[in-house]
Amino acid sequence: MNIYSDRINHLRKLMKAEGIDVYYIPMSDCHDSEYVGDHFRCIEFLTGFSGSAGHVLITMDEAWLFADGRYYIQAANQIEGSGIILMKWGQPDVPEPLVFVREKAKGKVLGFDGCVVNANFAEKISQDASDIKYEKDLVGKIWTDRPAQTFTEIWNLPLEYCGESSESKLARVRKEIEKEYPDAGSYAYLLGSLDDIAWVFNIRANDIPNNPVAYAYAVICGGTAHLLTNKKGYGRNWYQMEETQETNKKGYGRNWYPLEEKKETNEKGKAGATDVTCILMDKNRIGYSTYRYFKNRKKKIIHIDDPSRKMKAVKNETEIKCLKQALLRDSAVIIRLMRWVKENAGKIHLDEISIDEFLLQKRGEDPLFLEHSFDTIAAYKENAAMMHYEATLDTAKAIEAEGMLLVDSGGQYKDGTTDITRTFILGPVTDEEKKSFTLTAASMLRLLNAKFIEGCRGENLDIMTREPMWMEGMDYKCGTGHGVGHVLNVHEGPHNIRYRIGTAGPSAVLEEGMVVTDEPGVYREGAYGVRTENELLVVPYMETPDGKFLQFENLTFIPIDLDGIDITYLTEEDKKLLNNYHESVYQTMAPFFDTEMQNWLKEYTRPV
Amino acid sequence: MNIYSDRINHLRKLMKAEGIDVYYIPMSDCHDSEYVGDHFRCIEFLTGFSGSAGHVLITMDEAWLFADGRYYIQAANQIEGSGIILMKWGQPDVPEPLVFVREKAKGKVLGFDGCVVNANFAEKISQDASDIKYEKDLVGKIWTDRPAQTFTEIWNLPLEYCGESSESKLARVRKEIEKEYPDAGSYAYLLGSLDDIAWVFNIRANDIPNNPVAYAYAVICGGTAHLLTNKKGYGRNWYQMEETQETNKKGYGRNWYPLEEKKETNEKGKAGATDVTCILMDKNRIGYSTYRYFKNRKKKIIHIDDPSRKMKAVKNETEIKCLKQALLRDSAVIIRLMRWVKENAGKIHLDEISIDEFLLQKRGEDPLFLEHSFDTIAAYKENAAMMHYEATLDTAKAIEAEGMLLVDSGGQYKDGTTDITRTFILGPVTDEEKKSFTLTAASMLRLLNAKFIEGCRGENLDIMTREPMWMEGMDYKCGTGHGVGHVLNVHEGPHNIRYRIGTAGPSAVLEEGMVVTDEPGVYREGAYGVRTENELLVVPYMETPDGKFLQFENLTFIPIDLDGIDITYLTEEDKKLLNNYHESVYQTMAPFFDTEMQNWLKEYTRPV
Repeated sequence: MNIYSDRINHLRKLMKAEGIDVYYIPMSDCHDSEYVGDHFRCIEFLTGFSGSAGHVLITMDEAWLFADGRYYIQAANQIEGSGIILMKWGQPDVPEPLVFVREKAKGKVLGFDGCVVNANFAEKISQDASDIKYEKDLVGKIWTDRPAQTFTEIWNLPLEYCGESSESKLARVRKEIEKEYPDAGSYAYLLGSLDDIAWVFNIRANDIPNNPVAYAYAVICGGTAHLLTNKKGYGRNWYQMEETQETNKKGYGRNWYPLEEKKETNEKGKAGATDVTCILMDKNRIGYSTYRYFKNRKKKIIHIDDPSRKMKAVKNETEIKCLKQALLRDSAVIIRLMRWVKENAGKIHLDEISIDEFLLQKRGEDPLFLEHSFDTIAAYKENAAMMHYEATLDTAKAIEAEGMLLVDSGGQYKDGTTDITRTFILGPVTDEEKKSFTLTAASMLRLLNAKFIEGCRGENLDIMTREPMWMEGMDYKCGTGHGVGHVLNVHEGPHNIRYRIGTAGPSAVLEEGMVVTDEPGVYREGAYGVRTENELLVVPYMETPDGKFLQFENLTFIPIDLDGIDITYLTEEDKKLLNNYHESVYQTMAPFFDTEMQNWLKEYTRPV
Repeated sequence: MNIYSDRINHLRKLMKAEGIDVYYIPMSDCHDSEYVGDHFRCIEFLTGFSGSAGHVLITMDEAWLFADGRYYIQAANQIEGSGIILMKWGQPDVPEPLVFVREKAKGKVLGFDGCVVNANFAEKISQDASDIKYEKDLVGKIWTDRPAQTFTEIWNLPLEYCGESSESKLARVRKEIEKEYPDAGSYAYLLGSLDDIAWVFNIRANDIPNNPVAYAYAVICGGTAHLLTNKKGYGRNWYQMEETQETNKKGYGRNWYPLEEKKETNEKGKAGATDVTCILMDKNRIGYSTYRYFKNRKKKIIHIDDPSRKMKAVKNETEIKCLKQALLRDSAVIIRLMRWVKENAGKIHLDEISIDEFLLQKRGEDPLFLEHSFDTIAAYKENAAMMHYEATLDTAKAIEAEGMLLVDSGGQYKDGTTDITRTFILGPVTDEEKKSFTLTAASMLRLLNAKFIEGCRGENLDIMTREPMWMEGMDYKCGTGHGVGHVLNVHEGPHNIRYRIGTAGPSAVLEEGMVVTDEPGVYREGAYGVRTENELLVVPYMETPDGKFLQFENLTFIPIDLDGIDITYLTEEDKKLLNNYHESVYQTMAPFFDTEMQNWLKEYTRPV
């Protein structure tokens, strides 16, 4: 028996008392956020597993943890001795969590905390249960020293950084709703996704580390908009506030008040919150408890894909101008890191933590820097084979003058969010490492240089990146690229670069103004890892009678370490792409440096 | 007033008598076939439009014809003076036929012939109608000299050509059904798609020109299988036969008898047709009348994607061996055509019809030749800009010693179905024509040489073909490739090569054994057209710890006319691909020819 099996047994007693046979716990918060604050780390409290994604299921006799490929080893270590069964999510013989929970709950009473399970997922797992109890935060009952939900100061992202007023964004959201749902009548649209709310209302905060969002809900009607955000804990049961009314004390530029409060329609004659005929919500991003609250009251509910999701992915002129500046300054930081680590490896004491410290210090000198956009991945040698490795003080590996160091890091600046990976050659590397490094460079450059007709999606483009690897029978087991928020989450939809078309359907069509990462890699367990990542912007290429064509504009200007390039793995075309890229890096970045540094940069951007 | 407006007015009188406000007519038969026999050409009878795809909608005041981009000009000419409004299907401002019909039928009484409208489409267009009348073949009532449905002799495709017995195919279909629908119980699976029926039962016929299929239905139960095929016209109301019983007189290897006839379960204890608990059908490929027949009788109906569709797309060893032989012989025919037309253009009288005659004569010398697999497209100069041009005796263009001739043609052989396009340079061509010809060659070769990981679909691969064109702001407005039946329809799903992901979802994952065409092109209205088309086979590339990788094996060995190649439009890689391809053409095809012809072939497969 260990501490976690004790906790699980405690939970089972509560389950028994509540008449629950099967209890489900997600890694989520009330907003279906990708990364959650400490208050919501129920899985870690109950099982010891500290990864960023997972699912737990408890019955009277058994307990299962689903962890994905990034976490197989870590999860196995962390749950050892607890009696929990590790489900290696993603392995061919392991069912999807949804299927597994539904199966185990068949004919049983299923319990979960409906605040932190999205409505769509909850409905699916409940389908075959004899009964469900969805208002049961049982982990909360035994977690006596649970950290409170964090509510930090909210600030406005000024127009000079965001480029569009909240009024204008709201008008666009309404227009989209009224176009897609012409029969919606006097609707109230519930928005729960934190980065969408931050985008619509031009607010930022620090409620979740690295994600500059505020815990909030928004209710958008035809003529009014309501931002619900305070420190009163609505986060778990915000709809309980409907009987009360308060005015916003912070001046976010709009009133907030409860959904069903009496209010006259505004001067445009459009509905306020009062006379709502239907509730719109994205059931994938609204908690089941909220959904049920309205459903139990016989409200008409229409599922809607949050329209702001695509709107915020298409960056406006101001956002693009700002992001370019942020990425130039951030490129300069990484170039300094590159030189520093290449010149000092083996000479001074360096370990993986030193890299993060260097980055925090250099970025911190920038007056617009807020925080890192995710935990820095500084992974030396075999540690780099773990795509989401994070060094700790205990485990940080010392860096020597040999092998490869992968650094994946990004900053939240007031003018943009960055995400950059470079792999540095610190001394002797094997031929295989050079081959992997070179093919990764070719892959990154080929996507960067792709031309494509309007209407293409990431699914159409991914082969441009992967072909140099597939030719060699090599592949990386993750997507090639993701959208990036503007002073928001480093991962953002609805577009991406992947070749697989998931059951949820294809990703969004790539549009002018979208930002996407380009990050191929090679990962060899126990040996090494390579990744090279730029941020790209979708821009026009040309328009002809055959159609409108798009291309990418490169936003990241950092050398690809020529010490790792073996030109025998490059085609003539690839060599041209590499030389053109390095020429542009030198031309763009030289003005940031003094002559001595310029000379160094010249050397590392020389033609091959 | 012309003959077609008279017919439409006649139809309106019948509509009035039946109380129908809006009448819909598809270009389809009872089996949702892509190409239909003369009996089913109701649109042509009513409107004069003779294209292979279209939709017609008639109200008391208006009439609309939907025709796609291949047919804008032809349709406009053919319906002139009839008062019918041409809807240019595919133009951004033109709604989809489904949306348009549904809209026009809103609150009205909608009529159609439910035998020739698939159940899924019919349900969608009926959604907002106040009532529907779906057993109304009104065109049939005014079409006095309507050709009868054609029923030709049915023959068995022997095991030496098809490679798998019907028993084995049926067992696989049942296994798939029982896997996907474990709760289906005593099912009766209705299969209406003609090429699937031909594949399952190893039968062939000539009921539709170029498509060697028989009009038939199949009913597959757990323990019995029923092939319904005769000359009694069940094609329109086959379920009316359920009260009668006949035995099969042709020896197809199985009995046929009506669906609900009394019959004991067979020795395996699996259900016969009698005790059916549910009816499975692909609602996209079964007529609405059939669907409603069972629905009206309160039968449990489950929609299923016809499992044979994917099975028949994956060719077995025998089919592959046979197809390769057929394509080699067919390549020899096209090589002879290439030399003949290049050497004789401007010397003897040649026109577009001469090409079809040459091909029919040469292919006809092959003892395994059955018929052409589609109407030959021999299109000279500007005629080639029409992707599906068909020369007639009246319009056939004379061929001179200049410009380009596009020939897209294929044969049905007892050992395989072919589909080949080559564009021949007959004399002086413009620089632009050479550029288009050269980029088309590069496009075809790049897909042929693509390597890809298992799990990829045509949507992932299409950019490999199109990138050389997109780089130049060029694009062709059709798919890059389609599946090909085995001694069956020249167009076959469920896979294809296209970049667009349609509303019906992505195409099937490419699997070892699938055959697909690779046919990029350039089409310039009023000027010229280029297309180069090979048939490719999906085969293994390599297997590594990173996964299983696939590639294409080329099946078509015909030179790409070097007189059209301008190497300034080829990368170094493209030149290698072209030279390797031509080397393989010479090595493979030389044994088919005498020394003199071999010398000619050597010249036209020389390296660039």
